Amino acid sequence: MKLEELADRCGEWLRGSGPQSDIVISSRIRLARNLAAFPFIRRCSEADRQAVDRAFRDAVAAVEEWKDIIFFDVNSLGTLDRQFLVERQLISRELSEASGARSVFVDRHETFSLMINEEDHLRVQVMHSGLDLTAAWEQISAIDDALGKNVSFAFHQRLGYLTACPTNVGTGMRVSVMLHLPALVITQQIEKVFRSLQKMGLAVRGLYGEGSQAMGDFYQISNQITLGSSEVDLVKQVGEVIPVIIDYERQARAFLVKESRKDLHDRVSRAFGILCTAQTISSEETLHLLSSVRMGINMGLIQDLEIPTINKLFIHTQPAHLQKLRGITLETADRNVERALYLQTHLRKRTDQN
Amino acid sequence: MKLEELADRCGEWLRGSGPQSDIVISSRIRLARNLAAFPFIRRCSEADRQAVDRAFRDAVAAVEEWKDIIFFDVNSLGTLDRQFLVERQLISRELSEASGARSVFVDRHETFSLMINEEDHLRVQVMHSGLDLTAAWEQISAIDDALGKNVSFAFHQRLGYLTACPTNVGTGMRVSVMLHLPALVITQQIEKVFRSLQKMGLAVRGLYGEGSQAMGDFYQISNQITLGSSEVDLVKQVGEVIPVIIDYERQARAFLVKESRKDLHDRVSRAFGILCTAQTISSEETLHLLSSVRMGINMGLIQDLEIPTINKLFIHTQPAHLQKLRGITLETADRNVERALYLQTHLRKRTDQN
Repeated sequence: MKLEELADRCGEWLRGSGPQSDIVISSRIRLARNLAAFPFIRRCSEADRQAVDRAFRDAVAAVEEWKDIIFFDVNSLGTLDRQFLVERQLISRELSEASGARSVFVDRHETFSLMINEEDHLRVQVMHSGLDLTAAWEQISAIDDALGKNVSFAFHQRLGYLTACPTNVGTGMRVSVMLHLPALVITQQIEKVFRSLQKMGLAVRGLYGEGSQAMGDFYQISNQITLGSSEVDLVKQVGEVIPVIIDYERQARAFLVKESRKDLHDRVSRAFGILCTAQTISSEETLHLLSSVRMGINMGLIQDLEIPTINKLFIHTQPAHLQKLRGITLETADRNVERALYLQTHLRKRTDQN
Repeated sequence: MKLEELADRCGEWLRGSGPQSDIVISSRIRLARNLAAFPFIRRCSEADRQAVDRAFRDAVAAVEEWKDIIFFDVNSLGTLDRQFLVERQLISRELSEASGARSVFVDRHETFSLMINEEDHLRVQVMHSGLDLTAAWEQISAIDDALGKNVSFAFHQRLGYLTACPTNVGTGMRVSVMLHLPALVITQQIEKVFRSLQKMGLAVRGLYGEGSQAMGDFYQISNQITLGSSEVDLVKQVGEVIPVIIDYERQARAFLVKESRKDLHDRVSRAFGILCTAQTISSEETLHLLSSVRMGINMGLIQDLEIPTINKLFIHTQPAHLQKLRGITLETADRNVERALYLQTHLRKRTDQN
């Protein structure tokens, strides 16, 4: 499959149909694994990296159910293509920006990806729509087992899985849930919620993981500690706190509807109006406005528009996606015009149908 | 005619079809006159005011062509009705806020009004759409003559017409042109233009005359001096400078189209989008956005919408008009909601037809 074919589609995690999907965008788990026979990435020669890459290609090829898996040789991709995969959350910024042999396997539904030669030899990622950590855990555990049959992972009897960075040693697992929390932001309660989460040993990050800014009221909440707890315990730890945050967000939304329904309606309706009429628009403003519209739909303040449409626009209006969809490379100013055109077309089409 | 019947209509000066009407909203001339037999207003007793009022009722009744003229006894009108007449530019704030016997006559097409017991015993106002000072001058001169046949105005051989305020002595005339100058505002040339006008003895005021703020990029330019020049000279003085300002505005628009067409298109298109989708909106924001849309239509950046529609919205979205159209009195917050609804209905209807 060519990368272009992915552009117009949407990953499973964007379906917007999973449990609590008005607030929970996606449930994600990743595992860090390293091959016992090779040094960690930072000490790898280019020959080592190539050998690691080859070992995983063989291991993946040996799994019967994965015979139509999609493969991208990230090292041979141009900047735009790599950025495209980052925007789609199929590879990390780190894998995109590294050098030397590195690659990624993605299943056709984009529920999982296998990054080769990222910070570790292997990063497995599973992503599901809505709040569904159990399904994500079952899937990633099966993937781990399937690969484990064909390669030998670096594992220490007492420490568990060995990883390039000590913060990942043990389970090598990060459980994270992406939440849309606009009402907690509007009511200025978000900082308080984050401080509580940090005290519980959970991390809060922006849309694109570590070091990224929270944009459009999207937040990733994940475990900090990977050592000393079982995988099931980690899933449970994150899984137990998310419903509490969901409840806070719901309370904040109810409060807003009760206290300032008109102002809220005004805010989301104007956001929709600007998205439909702007002639040039940055990705940051787009994210911000789509976030308002998303909340508006979920609160019944905007009709004739569906969450999957908005989720798709979040992804498709990003810089690399826009250029891939258009089939040409564009400078920032031209991208802003193209983005406005794309939004107009897709939002007006929707409303005209009704 | 009842005041309510005026509400849904539009005055002649809002037709938007006069010469240069993309930039010139209206051409207005007013004359200040006083009856020789009575003291100036500030020294009038209430009995004097009533006698002045009666004298003008008789004088107006004596003019054959004015038999279907509309009359409002301003003193007996409530606050809302008086505000309505101010918004419509048929009476001044001063007449609205004064006390005692005072009234106004308005012709059915709202091309002229006769205010009785304003700062002077009589203020005659003629207002035409676009740049048409000659027609305005001919009409007001005929009105002055018609009234002069039936009353005796205070006139001094050397000074000319005597008025309550010395700044109006002589011709008692103010010639003013209302201009829409958004491009001079955007390109930050407006202050420079105003300084030049002041040096030429011309005054610049906002939408509602003396002391009012310039809102929505609308400016009234008028003569300061009424003494020592003939009426025709005053019309000529203002009439000669307006085409220069029009030319500046056109140059600024051309510059904007050339240098930043996309940003300009974005600005006017978003303004339209917000007007169509806001759920609550102040009159000040409405004025500001309608101003952008008006410029957009005139520059061909917005289609399927006509200037008279926008001109009408300028008037109808004002506080008193909104309440008159709705038939109830409304607090500010409710007016803002009602205004948003009115804008949605009238702007969406227009675009749906196309």
